Amino acid sequence: MEQYENVAVQTDFHIDSAREAIDALDLQIIEIIQRRQAISLQIQQKRMSEGGTRTVLSREERILDRYATGLGARGTALALNILSLCRGRVTTAEPGAGGGPQGAR
Amino acid sequence: MEQYENVAVQTDFHIDSAREAIDALDLQIIEIIQRRQAISLQIQQKRMSEGGTRTVLSREERILDRYATGLGARGTALALNILSLCRGRVTTAEPGAGGGPQGAR
Repeated sequence: MEQYENVAVQTDFHIDSAREAIDALDLQIIEIIQRRQAISLQIQQKRMSEGGTRTVLSREERILDRYATGLGARGTALALNILSLCRGRVTTAEPGAGGGPQGAR
Repeated sequence: MEQYENVAVQTDFHIDSAREAIDALDLQIIEIIQRRQAISLQIQQKRMSEGGTRTVLSREERILDRYATGLGARGTALALNILSLCRGRVTTAEPGAGGGPQGAR
């Protein structure tokens, strides 16, 4: 049998209501990311209109660190995911768009 | 030059304050996921203590759909990431733990 992290489960704990709570949290996460996308897009637009690059590596690293600090090592993968989601759709290849994480706003 | 999604940028738009807003949203996302982890762990514990499996595929698929509906195709990768973050640490290999997404709560 597997051993899993031992967490005290309250006696009156009901899976159905716990799942409803998770569903509500998921909707909050989605809504916040949609807002993040909108703001992020405006930053990209502003930077590009001023002839700047779309991403700033140091800014990106601070965002990755924030998620790793809050959620552990796997938080970094989540942050990369969120940065990717917040990247505006680019229709032609960006000149000089090197590898690595992109999209820090 | 790349073409990017055209978004109207307000004239008084300031990148610094926009980044502060994004930083605040990131902290909210982290905090919500920490809460989701705690609830999710309790559900896993409860299911395992009752001899059930830790994950329910149909539940998982509903969660993936929710993120894809809200955030588009890339929302699915984010959901898989969040499910992974919310999975309790298992110290021994789970019997019958097949491939594919795990950890729906």
